[in-house]
Amino acid sequence: MAIARQTILYDGPGGPFEGVAAWEDAVEGTRPCVLVLPNVLGQKEADNLKADALAALGYVALVADVFGQGKRTTLQSDDRSRYMDELNADRPLLRDRLAASLAALKALPQADPEKAAAIGFCFGGKCVLDMARAGLGILGGVSFHGVYDPPSYPSVVPIAAKLLICHGWDDPISPPEATVALANELTQSGADWQLHAYGHAGHAFTDSGRAGPGDIAYEPRADRRSWRAMTDFLERLFA
Amino acid sequence: MAIARQTILYDGPGGPFEGVAAWEDAVEGTRPCVLVLPNVLGQKEADNLKADALAALGYVALVADVFGQGKRTTLQSDDRSRYMDELNADRPLLRDRLAASLAALKALPQADPEKAAAIGFCFGGKCVLDMARAGLGILGGVSFHGVYDPPSYPSVVPIAAKLLICHGWDDPISPPEATVALANELTQSGADWQLHAYGHAGHAFTDSGRAGPGDIAYEPRADRRSWRAMTDFLERLFA
Repeated sequence: MAIARQTILYDGPGGPFEGVAAWEDAVEGTRPCVLVLPNVLGQKEADNLKADALAALGYVALVADVFGQGKRTTLQSDDRSRYMDELNADRPLLRDRLAASLAALKALPQADPEKAAAIGFCFGGKCVLDMARAGLGILGGVSFHGVYDPPSYPSVVPIAAKLLICHGWDDPISPPEATVALANELTQSGADWQLHAYGHAGHAFTDSGRAGPGDIAYEPRADRRSWRAMTDFLERLFA
Repeated sequence: MAIARQTILYDGPGGPFEGVAAWEDAVEGTRPCVLVLPNVLGQKEADNLKADALAALGYVALVADVFGQGKRTTLQSDDRSRYMDELNADRPLLRDRLAASLAALKALPQADPEKAAAIGFCFGGKCVLDMARAGLGILGGVSFHGVYDPPSYPSVVPIAAKLLICHGWDDPISPPEATVALANELTQSGADWQLHAYGHAGHAFTDSGRAGPGDIAYEPRADRRSWRAMTDFLERLFA
């Protein structure tokens, strides 16, 4: 058993884009596929490791690039949110880049394009929600400490993708009123949704590089519980 | 393999009380124990079946009686909430009856008294929360479509019991503001808590006898998901 990784170049509006695919090389044939949507910094090794973990679960994963090849920042960057800010200001463009990323995932030779899902972290959680709102072709999605403001365009109704929202209750970026608003939005859109909220967890609770204390920090219990919930969710989604 | 059941009589303030225990008879020795807290109607066959299901998972379960022997109502009763109302008006008495029920559970010959938990439905969910708030000796508790108003007495701080709150988002008895208030209360009390909220589910979503439509009705997806979450929760709690 060995996890294979490959850099994937793909096109789309504002591209080229550069993602990273991972799959279990000992498995032959196609398998369900999962798009991994990074946080504000864009594709990085932490996302590649999530893709590896999904590969170990039996999926083929693609870490998406919605910013563009070479467009990355770090926590130390002066303007680390610059690429995200551009897309937050143009949600239709974000949608179209998500569609391009999903197409790249489904085009992987290991992928069963009929069985696709998406997971995402922070801004990537918003990306998951936007994929569902836009009616892109995923069976389901999992948002980890996402951001919940709806896009400028109307949502498809009903939302077809099943959604699992993993949420740190102390998240200062997505406080209770935003979380309640998301729940109401998803209800009105007819989505099959679940919210898992974790006490004493904030934003970025899956990010082992963000030491606490504070409300934007790694929280190992919420990290473990949410990954387990995702594992169950995907297993049932693709069954 | 066979599930055994036994009627258990026990004492306490306002007793005697009559509960029903269930365990797997083919298993020898003690095992973790779970108190099952019924809804407004009190102990009934639907609760006994939950105890059977817990027995099949490897636990010994006791369906608690907090109303008193023979004090039961049905959905058809004119005054079906009469026994619950008395206890909602006297939360210290409810607490003491919960303590008596927990003692009866731990006294079962099949029970490992060091490994106890509680689950409850509707009013029984409130009972679970009150056990945690009162510092009764459970490692954890699971509330299914519970009721969230805090008791008249102050909570222990920190709450030691881990808590899983399984919640139907459309619950008219526990609307979003009550749910947010509970989350904030449990955070302030220092509890290790999780909330699993399910879209398009209301109150009583586990109650297969309550046909929908409506916001107080059985909802099979939320029923399945919450039971699965409980199963995981208890497994880890007792590991």
